[in-house]
Amino acid sequence: MYKLAGELFPICRSITGNGVRETLNILKRECNLLKIYEVPSGTKVFDWTVPKEWNINDAWVKNSKGEKIIDFKKNNLHVVGYSTPVHKKVSLDELLSITYSLEDQPDVIPYITSYYKERYGFCISDIQKKSLKDDEYEIFIDSELKQGSLTYGEIIIPGKTKKEILLSTYICHPSLASNELSGPVVAINLAKWLENMDNYYTYRIIFIPETIGSITYLSRNLEYLKDNLAAGFVLTCLGDNKCYSYIASRYGNTLADRAAVCVLKHYSPDYKKFTFLNRGSDERQYCAPGVDLPVCSVTRTRYGDYPEYHTSADNMDFISQEGLDGSLNVYKKIINLLENNRHYKVNVLCEPQMGRRNLYPTLSTKHSGGGRLSG
Amino acid sequence: MYKLAGELFPICRSITGNGVRETLNILKRECNLLKIYEVPSGTKVFDWTVPKEWNINDAWVKNSKGEKIIDFKKNNLHVVGYSTPVHKKVSLDELLSITYSLEDQPDVIPYITSYYKERYGFCISDIQKKSLKDDEYEIFIDSELKQGSLTYGEIIIPGKTKKEILLSTYICHPSLASNELSGPVVAINLAKWLENMDNYYTYRIIFIPETIGSITYLSRNLEYLKDNLAAGFVLTCLGDNKCYSYIASRYGNTLADRAAVCVLKHYSPDYKKFTFLNRGSDERQYCAPGVDLPVCSVTRTRYGDYPEYHTSADNMDFISQEGLDGSLNVYKKIINLLENNRHYKVNVLCEPQMGRRNLYPTLSTKHSGGGRLSG
Amino acid sequence: MYKLAGELFPICRSITGNGVRETLNILKRECNLLKIYEVPSGTKVFDWTVPKEWNINDAWVKNSKGEKIIDFKKNNLHVVGYSTPVHKKVSLDELLSITYSLEDQPDVIPYITSYYKERYGFCISDIQKKSLKDDEYEIFIDSELKQGSLTYGEIIIPGKTKKEILLSTYICHPSLASNELSGPVVAINLAKWLENMDNYYTYRIIFIPETIGSITYLSRNLEYLKDNLAAGFVLTCLGDNKCYSYIASRYGNTLADRAAVCVLKHYSPDYKKFTFLNRGSDERQYCAPGVDLPVCSVTRTRYGDYPEYHTSADNMDFISQEGLDGSLNVYKKIINLLENNRHYKVNVLCEPQMGRRNLYPTLSTKHSGGGRLSG
Repeated sequence: MYKLAGELFPICRSITGNGVRETLNILKRECNLLKIYEVPSGTKVFDWTVPKEWNINDAWVKNSKGEKIIDFKKNNLHVVGYSTPVHKKVSLDELLSITYSLEDQPDVIPYITSYYKERYGFCISDIQKKSLKDDEYEIFIDSELKQGSLTYGEIIIPGKTKKEILLSTYICHPSLASNELSGPVVAINLAKWLENMDNYYTYRIIFIPETIGSITYLSRNLEYLKDNLAAGFVLTCLGDNKCYSYIASRYGNTLADRAAVCVLKHYSPDYKKFTFLNRGSDERQYCAPGVDLPVCSVTRTRYGDYPEYHTSADNMDFISQEGLDGSLNVYKKIINLLENNRHYKVNVLCEPQMGRRNLYPTLSTKHSGGGRLSG
Repeated sequence: MYKLAGELFPICRSITGNGVRETLNILKRECNLLKIYEVPSGTKVFDWTVPKEWNINDAWVKNSKGEKIIDFKKNNLHVVGYSTPVHKKVSLDELLSITYSLEDQPDVIPYITSYYKERYGFCISDIQKKSLKDDEYEIFIDSELKQGSLTYGEIIIPGKTKKEILLSTYICHPSLASNELSGPVVAINLAKWLENMDNYYTYRIIFIPETIGSITYLSRNLEYLKDNLAAGFVLTCLGDNKCYSYIASRYGNTLADRAAVCVLKHYSPDYKKFTFLNRGSDERQYCAPGVDLPVCSVTRTRYGDYPEYHTSADNMDFISQEGLDGSLNVYKKIINLLENNRHYKVNVLCEPQMGRRNLYPTLSTKHSGGGRLSG
Repeated sequence: MYKLAGELFPICRSITGNGVRETLNILKRECNLLKIYEVPSGTKVFDWTVPKEWNINDAWVKNSKGEKIIDFKKNNLHVVGYSTPVHKKVSLDELLSITYSLEDQPDVIPYITSYYKERYGFCISDIQKKSLKDDEYEIFIDSELKQGSLTYGEIIIPGKTKKEILLSTYICHPSLASNELSGPVVAINLAKWLENMDNYYTYRIIFIPETIGSITYLSRNLEYLKDNLAAGFVLTCLGDNKCYSYIASRYGNTLADRAAVCVLKHYSPDYKKFTFLNRGSDERQYCAPGVDLPVCSVTRTRYGDYPEYHTSADNMDFISQEGLDGSLNVYKKIINLLENNRHYKVNVLCEPQMGRRNLYPTLSTKHSGGGRLSG
């Protein structure tokens, strides 16, 4: 899983565009049950609209000596996501006005997007920003915003029942490791594991852009999911090797919640519990009023709870094979619990006669069944 | 409010009669939305019957020297409420047998009534009672018990909805300040305040005799109130400047209870809580089984909890403008809370898109909306 | 009660047979409302079948000198219940293989049965077992297993209502005192007490073999009991003079549970509480899913919780008249509580007028009804 994450790491993903397609094709290579869907820009999805498709080839900033001081090819976080194309000379002041950094984390590049308002911008470390000198700079972004489509992937693994387990993860962040790629690599490995099992439940494993992707997906599948979803999980932030976290569904009482809590309580009892008030990923959509699907999330260190989050420090050094393995294992345990969770109904009145089914000792003693009898 | 209470103080009210009418006419002068109703004696009202109307002009006891030793004109508490007319000479023993005092509060005149059994009697301080000498006394009560009516007042202030807030207070005690007049003066001031507001709820403010009045009122209005009452409050004992009390409805979980508790918890957190087991005023009728209206009561020191209660010491010195102002303010806060208590229903599936309503930053960063981003 | 228990003690009872009949006839002498029923062997009763009837006349083991070293006539626990007839010579090894003792309680004879598998065997103290020498032994059991019937007793004491209280106890153990005879002797004394009372409830007091008896009884009476049973109790282990125990019904919230808990909380607050997970007697059948009758159990030291349980040490020395009296008293208190447990329904709206029913003082004073008024 760590190797696959490394392969996916350099790709510049966003909520639409070729980075998503390239990512899904690599995942399809891992599990060819994956089907890829395109939803045209402009499609109404509940309160939202599928945005234009964004693609980017290159971007840089040069100083007056022609030196590339910011280079998209070195780190795709350098460009504000959904930046419109631009090529012009700017003063230091203008450059600073479109350049973003984090004062309290001066050595990392922040991850910034502007999906729903057209603008352009660059992201750099605060150290670099503070070092920029008065100069004339050439800025260049070779991007395109066009009527295109939003792309997502879906794997369906049929089981004995139409009742489903949903595993939802996202593929819309550029070079970010735990808060992105840990999700898809654990999800695709769960798919490969489930594919070869004789499952009770049908499994639906989806790879979507966060927020707009889950809204789009729900706008096309909500009725079916309301009828058939038994439990669902949002897979994200699964790469570090630290404490597990559980983010509850809206009321925290669904089958998904109970399975997650039961596994974590036994497997990792020091896990952190968050209510739906601390939600942050696609459980926001799955549990929205009127949607009300039984979906919660089990993560390692939760989005926003680690300083590397949404910066260039959430990289391949931040995650590990051990971290990914543990997360995979927890989800396997949750799935095993769900698969084996049955309640039996006695169909006779009074106690069943266990003796005639060889389930009870024929000799009734003080310690019947307890083995302390001598004789 | 203190001045108005002082104007109303000398009037000899009872559960029927001209004292009630005089009181209601003064209140109507304050708010001419007040309508006055008369219900004939003998009218069946649930398990009760509207009693005869009682009026009194004068009453006294003279000693053998012709000195008035007890004089209704000095304090209308001197006569047992609903005393039948009498004029005769009596021995000391006979006088003592119809004279009531409080041994454990020897210097106050008790307030005593005999609404449902015809008798006559006098109330004096225990000091005076113990000082009465063997003598021939002349007793005189110029009262009348007749087929008449029970009188009550009602103010309706229409709001945007037929749903109503009820404010219920009583006008049946003679010269008693906190446990009587504080209620009507706060209620009439709430009416004057509400009259000029643009209200969501319709307000029903009623001035009734306690017990028989609320039973009579409910016998005429119960069906409508069951359909339309959102919350109601019994206004009484609002005149001292001490700790607030909350007397819960039968189950303590109505909108009225929640509004009262919410206001008191924030405004006067040391308030005293009483369950319905400690009820004592017209919430007894509003919350009776089968009536089941959402009515509770917020008071200052509760009836029966202060030694001055139902004695000549519950007078204009016992209450204050500050006390009345605080009570008025609490009820205004309760009403404001009810008026502004809305729950909003999201009418889209999934999250609403806040961005296109300018409710979300256009730039999505690690601290979106948190302002820690530099740039 | 202690004397009656002593009279019943020597009888060799089992789940069927003449010991049960003899026991029921003695109980009928105490209360001639007792009716005796016979259910033929082979009758299907829910998931079970009424077994063959077992009777035994004699049994012994002799050594090669002809000395009776084990003698049923000295203690009927010496024979495994439902032993098939046998008469033959056996080696020490064969004797040991059919002889049962308790290693951790070496001086007592265990009580052992084999109702549903045909075998024969003897029970002796572990001390005696370990002392047996190599010898040729003659073993003899004069018993009979035949198509016969299961016998039970029932007392119905009609009350004002068809609604019933069930008292269920069992009569299927041979010479065992607390875990058997304490139940029937307390139950028959409750019957004698109830017979002469003017009861609200109808009482159903049954004397049945445990397990197969309650299953048989329910198979014949379940519909009626489901319609009419208000509360029921399993009477067992009532003979020692130690702490009371309460074993809850399946959900612990029936009228029976509430009555038992209310009485024990006040009468014997240090009583032990067990949930249905600790069940062990016929509440297992009464509370089985689909049966769902409101039945719990109040005992002294619970079956299995005392070392004497199901051994020759649960004898007449283990129980006492004081212990039986206390238990009888607790059940009387429970019955009194149930008999007097009424809730009244007000059939008027608002408060009833207590005054015209002479339930309220005619004079309304500060302390109405409190008696502190002088005059």
